[in-house]
Amino acid sequence: MSTVDKQLEDVKATIDDEVPRHISVSDVTYEGPELVIYTRDPKEFAADGDLVRRLASKLRKRITVRPDPDVLTPPTRAEQDIRDLIPEEAGVTDLDFYEDTGEVVIQAQKPGVVIGRHGATLRDITREVGWTPEVVRTPPIESSTVDNVRNFLKQEREDRRDILERVGRQIHRDPMSNDEYVRITTLGCCREVGRAAFILSTPDTRILVDCGAKPGAESETPYLQIPEAFGAGANGIDAVVLTHAHLDHSALVPLLYEYGYDGPIYCTEPTRDLMGLLTLDYLDVAAKEGRNPPYGSEMVREAIKHTIPLEYGDVTDIAPDIKLTLHNAGHILGSSICHFHVGDGLYNVAFSGDIHYDDTRLFDGAVNDFPRVETLVLESTYGGKNDYQTDQDDSERKLKQIVQNAYDRDGKVLIPAFAVGRSQELMLVLEEAMREGDIPEMPIYLDGMIWEATAIHTTYPEYLRDSLRDRIFDADDNPFLADQFQHIDGGDDEREAVADGDSCIVLSTSGMVTGGPIMSWLEHLAPDPDSTITFVGYQASGTLGRRIQRGRNEIPIGGNGNGRSDSVTLDMNVETVDGFSGHADRQGLENFVRTMNPRPEKILCVHGDESATQDLSSSLYHDMNLRTFAPQNLETFRFR
Amino acid sequence: MSTVDKQLEDVKATIDDEVPRHISVSDVTYEGPELVIYTRDPKEFAADGDLVRRLASKLRKRITVRPDPDVLTPPTRAEQDIRDLIPEEAGVTDLDFYEDTGEVVIQAQKPGVVIGRHGATLRDITREVGWTPEVVRTPPIESSTVDNVRNFLKQEREDRRDILERVGRQIHRDPMSNDEYVRITTLGCCREVGRAAFILSTPDTRILVDCGAKPGAESETPYLQIPEAFGAGANGIDAVVLTHAHLDHSALVPLLYEYGYDGPIYCTEPTRDLMGLLTLDYLDVAAKEGRNPPYGSEMVREAIKHTIPLEYGDVTDIAPDIKLTLHNAGHILGSSICHFHVGDGLYNVAFSGDIHYDDTRLFDGAVNDFPRVETLVLESTYGGKNDYQTDQDDSERKLKQIVQNAYDRDGKVLIPAFAVGRSQELMLVLEEAMREGDIPEMPIYLDGMIWEATAIHTTYPEYLRDSLRDRIFDADDNPFLADQFQHIDGGDDEREAVADGDSCIVLSTSGMVTGGPIMSWLEHLAPDPDSTITFVGYQASGTLGRRIQRGRNEIPIGGNGNGRSDSVTLDMNVETVDGFSGHADRQGLENFVRTMNPRPEKILCVHGDESATQDLSSSLYHDMNLRTFAPQNLETFRFR
Repeated sequence: MSTVDKQLEDVKATIDDEVPRHISVSDVTYEGPELVIYTRDPKEFAADGDLVRRLASKLRKRITVRPDPDVLTPPTRAEQDIRDLIPEEAGVTDLDFYEDTGEVVIQAQKPGVVIGRHGATLRDITREVGWTPEVVRTPPIESSTVDNVRNFLKQEREDRRDILERVGRQIHRDPMSNDEYVRITTLGCCREVGRAAFILSTPDTRILVDCGAKPGAESETPYLQIPEAFGAGANGIDAVVLTHAHLDHSALVPLLYEYGYDGPIYCTEPTRDLMGLLTLDYLDVAAKEGRNPPYGSEMVREAIKHTIPLEYGDVTDIAPDIKLTLHNAGHILGSSICHFHVGDGLYNVAFSGDIHYDDTRLFDGAVNDFPRVETLVLESTYGGKNDYQTDQDDSERKLKQIVQNAYDRDGKVLIPAFAVGRSQELMLVLEEAMREGDIPEMPIYLDGMIWEATAIHTTYPEYLRDSLRDRIFDADDNPFLADQFQHIDGGDDEREAVADGDSCIVLSTSGMVTGGPIMSWLEHLAPDPDSTITFVGYQASGTLGRRIQRGRNEIPIGGNGNGRSDSVTLDMNVETVDGFSGHADRQGLENFVRTMNPRPEKILCVHGDESATQDLSSSLYHDMNLRTFAPQNLETFRFR
Repeated sequence: MSTVDKQLEDVKATIDDEVPRHISVSDVTYEGPELVIYTRDPKEFAADGDLVRRLASKLRKRITVRPDPDVLTPPTRAEQDIRDLIPEEAGVTDLDFYEDTGEVVIQAQKPGVVIGRHGATLRDITREVGWTPEVVRTPPIESSTVDNVRNFLKQEREDRRDILERVGRQIHRDPMSNDEYVRITTLGCCREVGRAAFILSTPDTRILVDCGAKPGAESETPYLQIPEAFGAGANGIDAVVLTHAHLDHSALVPLLYEYGYDGPIYCTEPTRDLMGLLTLDYLDVAAKEGRNPPYGSEMVREAIKHTIPLEYGDVTDIAPDIKLTLHNAGHILGSSICHFHVGDGLYNVAFSGDIHYDDTRLFDGAVNDFPRVETLVLESTYGGKNDYQTDQDDSERKLKQIVQNAYDRDGKVLIPAFAVGRSQELMLVLEEAMREGDIPEMPIYLDGMIWEATAIHTTYPEYLRDSLRDRIFDADDNPFLADQFQHIDGGDDEREAVADGDSCIVLSTSGMVTGGPIMSWLEHLAPDPDSTITFVGYQASGTLGRRIQRGRNEIPIGGNGNGRSDSVTLDMNVETVDGFSGHADRQGLENFVRTMNPRPEKILCVHGDESATQDLSSSLYHDMNLRTFAPQNLETFRFR
């Protein structure tokens, strides 16, 4: 008998002791980090509201109870019973019954209403029909990404259960080593921005944190080929943990499956969906630019199939000696600070991913309160000694002035913006400004992936700032559903019509004017001296965005395959409004560390250019007397 | 055609261009780091004294010329011709002809005389008989180790040529990577003394420097099992480089062959032989102490078979992008500072191994003059802020006084000593003292491996201090052949007779009184209040030596298998004389760095306990403004 089976026997014995005699336990297995208990008496299990919680606390595991298939009410009858139990206002749109696991997935506009107080309605459902309900939100704005992911996972259920069982056994294996150490190896994003990738290793376990591309330098990938990364094969790592979906953190995660990795990815649910959206676009862009995409789209599906979504605050076993907890990072939807508890009280490491410390319209500021943290791996994008951003209030005032001025001239405002994060923040600013009469009402056109990314945001309002979440729950007050927002889905004719029309605001990708629909908007709007192009995000050197900021007025257009390569002269006004960054600035980073509880012993300053990481490292050392480092790529630090 | 074969074709074309038409070149191959040129005209090759040097400089390779077998003078006639060419005073003792390579190995008491001025006699030999002469020294004191190694290598010639050819092709392969980096990974001996082991790595190459045991903590071995060491198999490394033969650097080198490694070991010839002696003894001791030896004695033979001996100063290609040069370290016979030149001018790293900076009687002080060194990995055994040793002159005076006092009481002096290094230093001190009349003449008995280790020293006088080497060349003045030195080879009866006899000095292993013949000497001499036990080396905590130093007077004896476990009371005088260490003290380490040319940019302080490495690191940083580190085990530092 393997050690995992032996351990399961022990777990089963404990469960048998704890569960009242009239409730049968037919089997106990691992599925990913969860312990699954099969019973012939699901209704009785559900009746004892506290039983699962008692078991979870005793076994220190996340527990799922599943009914044996033959004790279930047949789906047709069950469906009616379930619909009767759920209040009308929940807005149930779909019910899916899965006989293999006894689960029923309920899609509803208001999941909270389905769940009921402390899960009361869910328990009622099981008590009535035996099935285990799982609730997902019906996207208030239809999202093809969310639909595709959900349909794909439905279709791959069988494969996925095999994966989860394998991962579960891997997580719960016996530790092999008597040694004790905790190490971090830097595979990328040290003294640079891009290609985030770290390995957290103990004698028993190796975790890859992020695996990103380097925008603008696609040939510089994380050092996956070195012995301490994939030297002994891609399955030398136990798990991938993804802080958030931006491509400099996620783009090469699907590549791992091309390399033969077949383990899990842990991240939030929105990170999973956004990763799907952004990596598919990454492959598209690579193909359009004539680069060889590093992997095919089927690898994106593999990544999604292997993702085990976690919610903020869930403490999850991901290896025999490592527990992972994700915390809100305030940067983009689903972005996480990843906290690793190693051993039984041995050591704690937190990877910040990208963070925003102050609250924004979209998100609460990053969490910096942990049970324990000895080492913090901290992003330093704006860690340089002069990297202070304009206050967001001032930025908003400036943006509104720009809109007003353009309107007064009968012009338009064109804003190149990243699809995920900054666009939604701007949507909230503009919607409020119009609602409150600060600027005149006019259409706001959303082009590129912005509409789709917004749809994903509205699917996961739990990840948004409290007040915004509450507004989204109330369909009449969902700011993203405001009438001003118009989705450009008719191609270039529609753009031309808009450009020829009345005053309006256009948000379009790409955010650095390196391609995408923004090029088409420029072609139409560039000659108009009454209109304004407004930059709201960082423009990297080498991009057309940066060159326009610096005064270039010749815009290349065309390149539509017929060899034509014309240019148009830019007569628009050019404005820049900073202060909408998704990153903490220097002050924010310092505040994050200064108010962090507990204060870490060591900080590795990463994800910033050389001077930013060294400035931040040196300042945190001098001001707060912490042991700080500005690592290079390819180094290994030992902490215990 | 493989890239190596292609490269050999190019080399052959260059040789054909350079070699005069009347000299044929029949084949060109690699053997280890050397390029071997086969010719049907060995005599003509030898006649042009400068041709080989011109080729070597043009090709930047070490070159060996071999005759095609069928052009050689038959051995019987050749032997007479060779003996006629070599001056009588060379003292030729043996000639061995190897038809496979056309080599004749000449063993002589005075190799220098065989070689002649700038190798003139060697060239005469080839010109006369075609054979390529190789000269080795007839040990002035017969050494079973040297005999065994030479006979073993003779018997394994065929295997060894295969190994060398394989290694040669490996060294001269084309580099694969476009990346550039230089890294050191610490596998042991950081913040501790023992289990020395480092990996020097570039994108193309990985070198293991040392692989030692930790005396007194045998279960703490180097971290070979981590991914960046042998994670992808033992042949993930290209070469082993051994600084010196002490067990804390060498003991686990043979284990690598047990793990499947089949690459080369680079070290000096005396290091190879001493490693053979010491590792076989290590296995013996493990067996006697009831521990499971980590490998069998056949692995020691594998290690010897795979050793490619280098001389101090030879610049040798050991990988496509790494050249190795060994320099005298002044610590023990054959001990080396290993200097690695990486890439074509990219970076230079020196590993100090163990060093003694000042001259001793046996050795010149460590070399600290290099073409370039950016990073130095420096031993710190005596790096602590109070680690100053007594001046050797004072120590010698004290030792002589102890001998005189014992003699005056008709007593004896018992000195526990390490076989390799300290014993020979003391032999020189005592021999001179008697010769100069500072102490009375009396026998000096050598017990344990000391005699054999001394024999190995006399086999390689090139590695000893100039003045000592000259004395050894002159048999009448070889201090190790002085009449006082007597080899204990008659077992315990002989020891008892000596103990019952007149005043004398006994040098015996083990150096820390942890076993070996010293136990028998103690049994006989412990009750004698006229005799003195004198410690001359570091006594580690937990050893009987340390306990005697601290006043313990009950000595366990027996344990001869019949269950008897008696003890005897120690009535001898107990003295300690420091100042004979093989290690630089704190002052020596600082002087080594201060006068080093060029001054390195970075220093890693290793091979010392935690406070010693941190003291030294901090002091070198503050006093000399160098970037210094006191690494932990399991870390990786990147330098380029």
